[in-house]
Amino acid sequence: MTDTKRNDVPYKIYLSEEEMPKYWYNVRADMKTKPAPLVNPGTGEPMKPEELLPVFCKEAIDQEFDNDTAYVEIPEDIRNFYKMYRPSPLTRAYCLEEKLGTPAKIYYKFEGNNTSGSHKLNSAIAQAYYAKHEGLKGVTTETGAGQWGTALSMACAYLDLDCRVYMVKVSYEQKPFRREVMRTFGASVTPSPSMETAVGRKILAEHPGTTGSLGCAISEAVEDATSHEGYRYVLGSVLNHVLLHQSIIGLETKAALDKYGVKPDIIVGCAGGGSNLGGLISPFVGEMLRGENDYQIIAVEPASCPSFTRGKFAYDFCDTGNICPLAKMYTLGADFIPAPNHAGGLRFHGMSPILSQLYHDGYMEARAVPQTEVFEAAEYFARCEGILPAPESSHAIKVALDEAKKCKETGEEKVIVIGLTGTGNFDLVAYQKFNDGIMDDYVPTDGELEASFAKLPKVE
Amino acid sequence: MTDTKRNDVPYKIYLSEEEMPKYWYNVRADMKTKPAPLVNPGTGEPMKPEELLPVFCKEAIDQEFDNDTAYVEIPEDIRNFYKMYRPSPLTRAYCLEEKLGTPAKIYYKFEGNNTSGSHKLNSAIAQAYYAKHEGLKGVTTETGAGQWGTALSMACAYLDLDCRVYMVKVSYEQKPFRREVMRTFGASVTPSPSMETAVGRKILAEHPGTTGSLGCAISEAVEDATSHEGYRYVLGSVLNHVLLHQSIIGLETKAALDKYGVKPDIIVGCAGGGSNLGGLISPFVGEMLRGENDYQIIAVEPASCPSFTRGKFAYDFCDTGNICPLAKMYTLGADFIPAPNHAGGLRFHGMSPILSQLYHDGYMEARAVPQTEVFEAAEYFARCEGILPAPESSHAIKVALDEAKKCKETGEEKVIVIGLTGTGNFDLVAYQKFNDGIMDDYVPTDGELEASFAKLPKVE
Repeated sequence: MTDTKRNDVPYKIYLSEEEMPKYWYNVRADMKTKPAPLVNPGTGEPMKPEELLPVFCKEAIDQEFDNDTAYVEIPEDIRNFYKMYRPSPLTRAYCLEEKLGTPAKIYYKFEGNNTSGSHKLNSAIAQAYYAKHEGLKGVTTETGAGQWGTALSMACAYLDLDCRVYMVKVSYEQKPFRREVMRTFGASVTPSPSMETAVGRKILAEHPGTTGSLGCAISEAVEDATSHEGYRYVLGSVLNHVLLHQSIIGLETKAALDKYGVKPDIIVGCAGGGSNLGGLISPFVGEMLRGENDYQIIAVEPASCPSFTRGKFAYDFCDTGNICPLAKMYTLGADFIPAPNHAGGLRFHGMSPILSQLYHDGYMEARAVPQTEVFEAAEYFARCEGILPAPESSHAIKVALDEAKKCKETGEEKVIVIGLTGTGNFDLVAYQKFNDGIMDDYVPTDGELEASFAKLPKVE
Repeated sequence: MTDTKRNDVPYKIYLSEEEMPKYWYNVRADMKTKPAPLVNPGTGEPMKPEELLPVFCKEAIDQEFDNDTAYVEIPEDIRNFYKMYRPSPLTRAYCLEEKLGTPAKIYYKFEGNNTSGSHKLNSAIAQAYYAKHEGLKGVTTETGAGQWGTALSMACAYLDLDCRVYMVKVSYEQKPFRREVMRTFGASVTPSPSMETAVGRKILAEHPGTTGSLGCAISEAVEDATSHEGYRYVLGSVLNHVLLHQSIIGLETKAALDKYGVKPDIIVGCAGGGSNLGGLISPFVGEMLRGENDYQIIAVEPASCPSFTRGKFAYDFCDTGNICPLAKMYTLGADFIPAPNHAGGLRFHGMSPILSQLYHDGYMEARAVPQTEVFEAAEYFARCEGILPAPESSHAIKVALDEAKKCKETGEEKVIVIGLTGTGNFDLVAYQKFNDGIMDDYVPTDGELEASFAKLPKVE
């Protein structure tokens, strides 16, 4: 690599605190076709904001329904919290480019430089702040492997807010480390299903040996919030207001690139519920929607849970327990159980309604990649760039490497931006399986998906 | 807290890449009394550089013996690697100050923003670079819990250098996560004692069920290096050249403080082998040695392993196996086995000869703190500042909190700088014990220490 290339921009572009965005960007304001409204499963009618008041904080509901306000001011207290770990660095992957021998220019926006280890903190502090601001005592949530629960416990510790986390029992027992981080931050962590809730007791009576599921944990967390004065339930992905908070990722990325006069050609991110990808691409898609600019946007999902690439665009439940409102989204069906996949954060049957609409309208493409190739890309990246990436993030890395190799063949100097959502520091069981060569690459059959689609609720 | 106070300096002070130091600082050049030379245990004479050539890289040996050169240029390749995670942030702990209600101004230099999770990488890349530069095939080392081994494996992956790590067997089996990080970075990790070396086979024959020790792992790593063409042994702390590399911490800290016209009153760091503390304080102590400035420097060690506060300043072996040269240092005796302590990096019986001399000459003070109080401080810090600190680093936090509370009583606006060496992301077993209230606070008796001192080698 020539020194000239290495001196294009700094290795890491840090914005100053003054350059940190003061507004979130709501991409819905620029969408011609708005994401379809949530629907009440009982009536088949669009949900009204007041129907959600017992469950969510008021400000979160207002943001959820607001399809018009383009810029939403970030309260100063949230910005002060953000300053503990933001602006996050946008890094030019010089070492990776050199190793690949590609003329492509690769950047990654790294959201893992905080103890929760991921972007989840961006929305956790916002939702906790609104709960505090509304005079609530605490919040409840569910967590699988614990990334979202960790982020929420950090935000609640900062605000002296009670935090009650229902953690899927198998993770609680087999992945105790994130549980201990949550406890250190003062959260109460309950293995789900539990005897604390009616729904938990019912499930335990019917299935005494069950190790739990995310759907069950959601049901317990919602029941806990709605049956205790001063508590609300918070969710870490999928919903519109979560994507709004995560737009800080994309806004910072754009500001950092603009500072050095760099225009991306390809923006690639992993997609589970969609909060990270939605946040990363929002300001770029906004330019596409307004006809100002064009980008190639790629959503990457696991081949074991291919919502975009093999799912249906239809109304479906967000939870396995079928207690939440229906959302119109790309879905594999709420009954679909993905094969074990170590990118736990991507094992969701559905997809953010905003991203689903954008995908449906042709503003982005999607690729599904098998797990072993993802970990090969992760290892390659780690050895060059010195960061052990989260399995989720490594889906994006895999496709970025593919694109950079194409550039090597064509000679194109494309600018590729990767959303590096977090670290794999708590995913070493997965890396161990990869190192031992015993990773599973199961992909669902057409028959499995058809059986799941057959159970989709009939709406519209 | 008033907004005025919060706006003194940014939350995080990031130096630009141009502001990153281009030279390491060798504090020995300014010491009137130089650290005592290493001594050959066989002859009782000072070691000659050539005697170390079969073991260490040549450049490391030259640096080890150089008491005169004040500024040593950092090779460009090392600076390029540093740019992947440096300059590291100097953070103003506004939230901590607010929670404490102290007029003190607290800063922490955070070295945990890299996958190895600690400052160890600063010397690992330097030593690996010299090995590569000298045309070697690879390096060997020992590791306990794995912090140093992880850092070295990252550096070797970057340079395509073979990395062979002997990991204390009990850690290899019970703490598999750092082992998997090392494997992901391509290192071979061997549980020690092993059948790979003569010394390992001998120990296994004599003690078939042993779970190993750091002393044994050192012996195996040294034998491996000296019996294979193209290999050398590298060490992560204690030695002079390691402190030289770690001076980057202090130089950046000073540059960041100078940028905002801030002069520290107290600089506090944890002390195990001394590499982090030595690096942090070097440029400040340099000013003291040259009579330009004065600072209160505090070394913090575990009460379970109190080298400074209860040790002897004497020649001793650095390793339990007594195969390494003798160093003059504060020591509890090479036979001293500290009680189980979760700050694994601080469980060394001796102390850097440089720091030992500085302490002996009155340039710093030392405090020993019990483990439970350290974790209380860690938890308090985590909840305010959103970083889960390493148990090692939390020793410094504990004393910084004590000093900040004193300021609250006296009204003094002291500036306190903490060396935050790393994250606790791989120390959750320790945090779990703390959360469960079953932490051990054993302190060695005078009798135990006297018995250990009785075995010190007779030199001078």
